[in-house]
Amino acid sequence: MTGGKVNPFASRLASFADVLAKKGLDAALVFKQANVNALTGVDCDNACLLVSKEKVALFTDFRYIPAVERTAPWLKVGDIRKLSGKSPFTMRGVKLGKVGFESTIPHSQYLSLGKSLPGASLVDVSADIAGLRSVKTDAEIDAMRAAAKLNDEIWSEASGSFRAGMTEKDMARAIKRLMIDRGDGESFETIVCVGKNAAECHHVPDGTAWNGREPVLVDMGVRLGGYCSDMTRNIVPARPSRLYRKVYSLVLEANMRAIAAVKPGMATDALDAVARRFLAKNGFGKAFGHSLGHGVGIEIHEAPWAAKKKKTVLEPGMVITIEPGVYLPGNLGVRIEDIVVVTKDGCEVMSHSSKDGGF
Amino acid sequence: MTGGKVNPFASRLASFADVLAKKGLDAALVFKQANVNALTGVDCDNACLLVSKEKVALFTDFRYIPAVERTAPWLKVGDIRKLSGKSPFTMRGVKLGKVGFESTIPHSQYLSLGKSLPGASLVDVSADIAGLRSVKTDAEIDAMRAAAKLNDEIWSEASGSFRAGMTEKDMARAIKRLMIDRGDGESFETIVCVGKNAAECHHVPDGTAWNGREPVLVDMGVRLGGYCSDMTRNIVPARPSRLYRKVYSLVLEANMRAIAAVKPGMATDALDAVARRFLAKNGFGKAFGHSLGHGVGIEIHEAPWAAKKKKTVLEPGMVITIEPGVYLPGNLGVRIEDIVVVTKDGCEVMSHSSKDGGF
Repeated sequence: MTGGKVNPFASRLASFADVLAKKGLDAALVFKQANVNALTGVDCDNACLLVSKEKVALFTDFRYIPAVERTAPWLKVGDIRKLSGKSPFTMRGVKLGKVGFESTIPHSQYLSLGKSLPGASLVDVSADIAGLRSVKTDAEIDAMRAAAKLNDEIWSEASGSFRAGMTEKDMARAIKRLMIDRGDGESFETIVCVGKNAAECHHVPDGTAWNGREPVLVDMGVRLGGYCSDMTRNIVPARPSRLYRKVYSLVLEANMRAIAAVKPGMATDALDAVARRFLAKNGFGKAFGHSLGHGVGIEIHEAPWAAKKKKTVLEPGMVITIEPGVYLPGNLGVRIEDIVVVTKDGCEVMSHSSKDGGF
Repeated sequence: MTGGKVNPFASRLASFADVLAKKGLDAALVFKQANVNALTGVDCDNACLLVSKEKVALFTDFRYIPAVERTAPWLKVGDIRKLSGKSPFTMRGVKLGKVGFESTIPHSQYLSLGKSLPGASLVDVSADIAGLRSVKTDAEIDAMRAAAKLNDEIWSEASGSFRAGMTEKDMARAIKRLMIDRGDGESFETIVCVGKNAAECHHVPDGTAWNGREPVLVDMGVRLGGYCSDMTRNIVPARPSRLYRKVYSLVLEANMRAIAAVKPGMATDALDAVARRFLAKNGFGKAFGHSLGHGVGIEIHEAPWAAKKKKTVLEPGMVITIEPGVYLPGNLGVRIEDIVVVTKDGCEVMSHSSKDGGF
């Protein structure tokens, strides 16, 4: 949560009110924790945010009200328990009509919402909120830069402590401990893969011990100040096999070609294609089984999506991952992932850890 | 995930098939991660489980298929991508009809599901699955006993390391580190409250430093082997105020009275009332603002609910928390929480940490 009498989310809330006006909606009710957080800075697991042209009000329960009042004094706060069976509209005498909602809420909650708003028609605004969130404010970009920097530092310190004989779980624990000590823990479950385990791209760290000569793939992201980071690096063996060397060089080139291609106005499917066509041309098209990247912010996976068939146009302030990979089951896996923010003429790479394979 | 050719969830799956038969359903499609996990042992974030009288099949994506095949060889596995726009029914030629679904899935997913099953009628089975999950198998009870025991050990070691000058965040970090080293991390965000911060019952650990004489409330649960633990203890000052001493003694008595009352056949609202009436009779009814407890298992909060107006009848194998609390804003807060499993004639308390206030 953020403090102060000034609402640091005023501009995003105003943009959201514009969306409502354009869609002819009287108001919207926002329930998803990350969406409420992105629109108000309040992070709690039981809240309803009412947004209309006239007012913004947050309803939550007695467990959270004191903290919200203390940290977001600009925000009107009400007791969510008093809404039971009613809606904020009925309570406050606002005329019912077209009301925005998130289609990402549970179906059962959608049914209750419908009952609490008799006569209102519900219109999905989840994609609109995702769109607003995909363009970060300057304060958010600063927070994400800080998270990415801390992630670099943790990778440097943790990987420097890796020794032959450690298991994947041991290495993951070393990373997790540093994330707790220096940040707010993990953005997602840390992935550590020794040798051919890297061919399973969401491998769960297990008891596989590292012999000190195999490659190790690590996908990690510390959480800091409410924002996620995300990066994948590989410990490259001193004497890699010819195949590993070839795959590593191609994945690195795919990563760097995609980063060089990022700029405002480019569609995300075209960006995905930059890396995909390069790997395909070099014989590893089928071995790159996932998308090039995803947006990152309050959530580790959020809009926009750099994937086939996703045509979001990049804008300055969007933060995305660039993470091509090649997976050869039973043999090896390489993924190289950076986090970048789109600037007015390209992008700034927020991950600074070396990705030089040393060959 | 659990290994082996034998399906350790066969009995729960058979009970679920019985539910489907009783409701006249041809099959059910289960999407929620914790539900798929409870029915198959598979834990992954993109899966669809098809259950009918004739067959059980799990659909997931290429990232998880190798691990599922390795760890749950009894389970038929298919590629979820091939279901796009289709359903497992269309694919496998099963006749459409009444199909069970979880009303807890996102509304947008419900709409897609409806489109993929033209002519089928969807029937909510989420409460049925929650009911099956609420009664733990012997293997699950063993896993939860182990998690509760580890939680006791971590509390003992962490609280022994607390020193005057440490902040709430420092103390929370000490606990989190031990949970990573010895278990699979936290079941939920650890709560540490110094002094009057304990009156906010979901206080987020902050920079408040402990002077070594104030009370400290800690609500913590390590995750181990896929199961959660949950316990609240208080560091009682050597010379507590008369009020603190009185509140602590009453909360402890409420906790022990409720534990003594747990037995099969009792309704959960009646159990809640045992603690609630006792605290009300002693003048602290309004200060106990939450429910007495909740089920625990794969998720930290699951059925059954020990709360006013919740009339689940307790059965052997149900695992619930018993956590009365008294919160006096600006002054103090005390909560004492144990985790218990209902037995055939009462309950077994799984939390063994001392709750003796020392007075």
